Amino acid sequence: MKELDPQNITGVVIDQMSSTPDPRLREVVDSLIRHLHDFVREVKLTPEELSDGLRFLTNVGQTCTDTRQEFVLLSEVMGIETLVYTIADRLGEEHGTPTSILGPFYVSNVPNLNLGASIVGERTPELVFYGQVTDAHQRPLSNASVEIWQTDEDGLYDVQRPEFSESDLRGRFYTNDKGMYYFKSILPLGYSIPMDGPVGKLVSAQRRHGMRPAHVHYIVNAPGFKSLTTAIYLEDDPYLNSDTVFGVTQSLVAAVKEDDRCSPMPGLPTLRFDFQLRSDT
Amino acid sequence: MKELDPQNITGVVIDQMSSTPDPRLREVVDSLIRHLHDFVREVKLTPEELSDGLRFLTNVGQTCTDTRQEFVLLSEVMGIETLVYTIADRLGEEHGTPTSILGPFYVSNVPNLNLGASIVGERTPELVFYGQVTDAHQRPLSNASVEIWQTDEDGLYDVQRPEFSESDLRGRFYTNDKGMYYFKSILPLGYSIPMDGPVGKLVSAQRRHGMRPAHVHYIVNAPGFKSLTTAIYLEDDPYLNSDTVFGVTQSLVAAVKEDDRCSPMPGLPTLRFDFQLRSDT
Repeated sequence: MKELDPQNITGVVIDQMSSTPDPRLREVVDSLIRHLHDFVREVKLTPEELSDGLRFLTNVGQTCTDTRQEFVLLSEVMGIETLVYTIADRLGEEHGTPTSILGPFYVSNVPNLNLGASIVGERTPELVFYGQVTDAHQRPLSNASVEIWQTDEDGLYDVQRPEFSESDLRGRFYTNDKGMYYFKSILPLGYSIPMDGPVGKLVSAQRRHGMRPAHVHYIVNAPGFKSLTTAIYLEDDPYLNSDTVFGVTQSLVAAVKEDDRCSPMPGLPTLRFDFQLRSDT
Repeated sequence: MKELDPQNITGVVIDQMSSTPDPRLREVVDSLIRHLHDFVREVKLTPEELSDGLRFLTNVGQTCTDTRQEFVLLSEVMGIETLVYTIADRLGEEHGTPTSILGPFYVSNVPNLNLGASIVGERTPELVFYGQVTDAHQRPLSNASVEIWQTDEDGLYDVQRPEFSESDLRGRFYTNDKGMYYFKSILPLGYSIPMDGPVGKLVSAQRRHGMRPAHVHYIVNAPGFKSLTTAIYLEDDPYLNSDTVFGVTQSLVAAVKEDDRCSPMPGLPTLRFDFQLRSDT
């Protein structure tokens, strides 16, 4: 039996976990223990602070429901989700479009639409979204599926509206033989993360605004390629440099063009974004 | 706007939190972010593993009830609670008895008993617990309160019994003018942490037995001194070196003496433990 002290406790804990049969579980937990213990030692975390922290985490867990995932939100506002994506994006040799946050508003059951269709229902379309889906060597991928969803003129997704009944501002398109997708829509509006839960309270205590810049979500798939979940952000958004969930990276920013000679549907401003998929190997 | 990568994301996150007005909140969160990001980079945590981990944490939060604190248990089985205690115990100059885990079975409303009383109700007492409460300079502290609680012959606390109605194997004593406390009781039995929740499942996946060695809980208080929450562990317990919650440290281990000439109540075996309190300054 040892006399435990702030240094040797870490080795004692890791020793007790050393029979873990799953090597990856062992590796991940060992590393987590070492880094969390280093954190506790560095700030000399007090018993009261530990107690407050555990109460906070309990509260985060208990705020989760079937339609709200407060722990995912916590990992997002700490930049952990984006860190995990940037690591995953770099694991292979090939360059591809960066992953961005899926968010809680994805719905898998969306209408398949023809290229050029509008997703705005009764509203008047304001601009054309378009671009090309290619492999890492810029070769066009035809028949790739491009799912998109976005907020409306109030910064709300369809499922957030009390009167929600049918899909709005969502759709799935398939690229043509040149790898192109295009559809008509309106500009999305930025919005706040939920500020009424424990994560929102933390963000407030940090004097962060809680906003996300305006964006359009995309999931792009083609056989033989890794599924890409990402989002395109609008260049002139005031929250572009201070996204509360760190979803924005420079190469996902796009600008509206008033007079785009390359537009597949002339007459409206455009927002072009090309996607590069990584091989699924 | 930067292109985020696995290295620069950490600085971007910390920058966004830099306006936190509470300096301690800022210090703690900054350090936590740096160490958690280091962990994610070290193991190259995948999106699926992050998702599994967040689901696990959600489950831990949702397992908590008014009478069960699964997040405290998680911090215990990772050695974090003990690490925090060992740091707090060393913050002052004075040496004192180490803190040990409070556990979930503390009840503040317990009977005040006279020195020498038995806490075993109708059972036959098996041994005498006794010892001296002193300051850091071995000066006896009279009228110090000594609260104790322990498991019964089945390894259960009174509040865990379905028929629980009144206090059993608990009591509060006050030291005499020599700083001595003594009472009669039975040997406690070790027990398992709750294995039916997410933390128990993690501990099982690590092939840990989940047991705690036999112990008696103490809270010792005297005016002008820091409150001491600790526990005394029995020397011959098979789980002494593998306590699932890392509560045991060498200086909290005590041995039963069959023939103790110093016993304040001769005729029974004894378990002596002296407590040293730190000044409350």
